[in-house]
Amino acid sequence: MQLREGSMSEEVLLARVKALEEEVERLKAQLKVERDGAKREERTETSTSHQTESLKHQEGEENRSKQKKRGAERPFDFSVHPRRHVALRLAYLGWEYQGFAVQENTDNTVEARLFEALLKTKLIQDRQTSNYHRCGRTDKGVSAFSQVISIDLRSTQYGGGLGVTVPAGVEVKGKGSAEELPYVKILNRVLPQDIRILQWAPVETGFSARFDCQSRTYRYYFHRGDLDVDLMAEAAKRYEGTHDFRNICKMDVGNGVLQFQRTILSASIQPAQLNPTCPNDPHELYFFQVKGLAFLYHQVRCMMALLLLIGQKLEAPEIIEQLLDVEKNPRKPQYSMAVDYPLVLYDCHFECVDWRNEPEEENHVLNSLHQHWVQNAVKTQVLLGMIQGLQKTTTEMTSLQCWLMEGSRQKKYQPLLDRPRCQSLESRIQHFVKRGRLEQEEGENGEETTVFRGKRSKHSHLTRTNQILEQNHGEKTQDCPLQNL
Amino acid sequence: MQLREGSMSEEVLLARVKALEEEVERLKAQLKVERDGAKREERTETSTSHQTESLKHQEGEENRSKQKKRGAERPFDFSVHPRRHVALRLAYLGWEYQGFAVQENTDNTVEARLFEALLKTKLIQDRQTSNYHRCGRTDKGVSAFSQVISIDLRSTQYGGGLGVTVPAGVEVKGKGSAEELPYVKILNRVLPQDIRILQWAPVETGFSARFDCQSRTYRYYFHRGDLDVDLMAEAAKRYEGTHDFRNICKMDVGNGVLQFQRTILSASIQPAQLNPTCPNDPHELYFFQVKGLAFLYHQVRCMMALLLLIGQKLEAPEIIEQLLDVEKNPRKPQYSMAVDYPLVLYDCHFECVDWRNEPEEENHVLNSLHQHWVQNAVKTQVLLGMIQGLQKTTTEMTSLQCWLMEGSRQKKYQPLLDRPRCQSLESRIQHFVKRGRLEQEEGENGEETTVFRGKRSKHSHLTRTNQILEQNHGEKTQDCPLQNL
Repeated sequence: MQLREGSMSEEVLLARVKALEEEVERLKAQLKVERDGAKREERTETSTSHQTESLKHQEGEENRSKQKKRGAERPFDFSVHPRRHVALRLAYLGWEYQGFAVQENTDNTVEARLFEALLKTKLIQDRQTSNYHRCGRTDKGVSAFSQVISIDLRSTQYGGGLGVTVPAGVEVKGKGSAEELPYVKILNRVLPQDIRILQWAPVETGFSARFDCQSRTYRYYFHRGDLDVDLMAEAAKRYEGTHDFRNICKMDVGNGVLQFQRTILSASIQPAQLNPTCPNDPHELYFFQVKGLAFLYHQVRCMMALLLLIGQKLEAPEIIEQLLDVEKNPRKPQYSMAVDYPLVLYDCHFECVDWRNEPEEENHVLNSLHQHWVQNAVKTQVLLGMIQGLQKTTTEMTSLQCWLMEGSRQKKYQPLLDRPRCQSLESRIQHFVKRGRLEQEEGENGEETTVFRGKRSKHSHLTRTNQILEQNHGEKTQDCPLQNL
Repeated sequence: MQLREGSMSEEVLLARVKALEEEVERLKAQLKVERDGAKREERTETSTSHQTESLKHQEGEENRSKQKKRGAERPFDFSVHPRRHVALRLAYLGWEYQGFAVQENTDNTVEARLFEALLKTKLIQDRQTSNYHRCGRTDKGVSAFSQVISIDLRSTQYGGGLGVTVPAGVEVKGKGSAEELPYVKILNRVLPQDIRILQWAPVETGFSARFDCQSRTYRYYFHRGDLDVDLMAEAAKRYEGTHDFRNICKMDVGNGVLQFQRTILSASIQPAQLNPTCPNDPHELYFFQVKGLAFLYHQVRCMMALLLLIGQKLEAPEIIEQLLDVEKNPRKPQYSMAVDYPLVLYDCHFECVDWRNEPEEENHVLNSLHQHWVQNAVKTQVLLGMIQGLQKTTTEMTSLQCWLMEGSRQKKYQPLLDRPRCQSLESRIQHFVKRGRLEQEEGENGEETTVFRGKRSKHSHLTRTNQILEQNHGEKTQDCPLQNL
């Protein structure tokens, strides 16, 4: 590991620096999980280590890092730069994070890293004034291949353009023809390796990543093991259409989610490999793919949990209709949802958004994904080699169990409909009405309607409108008291 | 990713490398503290939970756990128990460890965990008196599916038996028929999850896991990427036979390794899956399997490095003969070896050892391997899904690079034989002769022979005999100054 100066050419040194920087990133990511204190310290270090690279793209950065050396920080003057409303498409591995959305109880979120990068690169002045919207939230441990946000970023387009706002009285001459900032490249230079910007798009100033999203697609990966995959595929179809999912999600009444009808456009089980090695290999991988307009908190993981129970023949496919029938089953039976790490927000669909690639950048992203993949794939194969080696000597054959349910499996399975039930929606509403966070009003036609009044909590910064709109967004990051039952 | 190539002077780069190396060490240290902390907790948990179960087998354990509750620890009287010389076959995932063999500079080794378990369960009194031998060492990050050790363990066989020594004057009556201790179960209860005992065997008192090992088999897993696997397979054959491998290992003269002839019984490239999905899929996995009597330090990873260069068409297969020809090439060219984590000590071959399984235990081991596998397999598939999704949108197609060489690739490849060379064996010997760790003597026929005198170092506990025998064992855990060049 020690350095032998004489014998290193510059290119070797450059390679070594690269390798070491990657190593540092990797170690920091690991530490992030293991130690809370390490996080704060880590980021300040990353920032200094990143300054060299961002120099060439960024006067902002340049000034800043120069001043850092002098110890002083001259405020960056945003008022002389145009702003541009853009959409950013990002992918991230959520395994090391507490979820996408910023939370009060932890700093270790994808959104927190994202805003650090936006602030560090002086693309925004602050979150409040950035006109920010996200397409969906993802839970702790959940990844995204296609998360989309909309936001106003610093721009070079003094001449104007789609989504561009040029501040009044700014000297324009000679600046009109400038290329837009390489947003993808700039941000990927300062983001952690497991968060990558894929594309950007100029959009109308009114565009919202949240409200203009046409539909969202999630994938949940799993291995065949001893699951009846055909039965699961048949059962998955039963989710399609518009249903009341209050028994197949975590009811989030406390955040003003009062309406549990959601529309599933498609739900299917597909093999991960187009042409499976041998169709009955218990190690074969599949995914549950579900496309919908919007999802409730923990909805996909609850949907998957039911499919896993059906695949294990512990429940009949009819259990889905039974739980979707909220007349017959107004109260959710207590059950564990599926674990977090196999879930991916795979796609967010928008109409007429003109995505821009930065080809050079795409290769960097592909390379870093490849690098992650190689390590995981090889380790997977090492384990499989051991399993197969062991199965040769074992006297009795064990089946490849399903390890994807939270909590621990019971010796004797208790059918869902015989289990203890959670509170009904009505009693939850009463609970929050008593606490003054919900209000019962008389509707136009005299019937009683419930309205959310907001609360003093980690979501208290949201307006009442936001709160009611929570009904239409994806999963949220919060603890689920039922998840281990 | 964060580097502006060609833009830094050498001094700056050297400074950066030093700084980064220090940071890496610092982070590793932090991580180790976290991990050891975590491991220790985990171990004590398992051990206490184990104590309750093992009461029925183990008076020793019983007394001990009772005393634990009283807080006092009465010394365990080993003199009244028979000793039995046994072989233990163990598997471990080496990714989180600094290697198999105990080292002075770290506590994070597989052997350290193993002896903690042997002491905790009172199967041995101490390492010194335990008549311990290991079959092979494995490097930092290297795993084993079939590591074998030989050792004397506490036994119930008062009536004697293969490998049993009954202490003189011990009350035997009524104890003759007892079953042997369930060694596998006892140890797996207290070992970390990533170290598992697979089997045990009673052996003659003279048996040594190290010296009675007939041959050792290593596997190195890799993905096809853009490698020419057929060419690699053809090249691998060139390793077979008896050759001088001084240019294809790390010369370990300092530890008395003076003889570099080794015999390779077989060397091949095989697909990891018997029936590959589609033969030209760059994500297809293979392994290099090499069987030999014994291996030098870092030999397999250097052999693999050459195969990877050949597979990338950076070197011709003939490079192997050229490097095996120590007349023409007495000095090793500087090159990076292959990374550690894909390497597995896959098998150790012994004649007429009667391995005993504990079926119930086998299922536990299989289950924990499955659990590890599921997590890795699913994460691998999540990454592959992202890669495939990205390749749909990318304007230019990138090839799946080879990420298995240490350091990282240079822009322009420099052929091995044109590279700077390491010291020759002779000058290394002179170096250690000067430092008094090697001695030049006159042999019977008047020729000069070199003899190892041991050293004051982390290996100083080894006798001279051990040191000379180092010539015949597997890889050792130590830093390799060349590994990153």
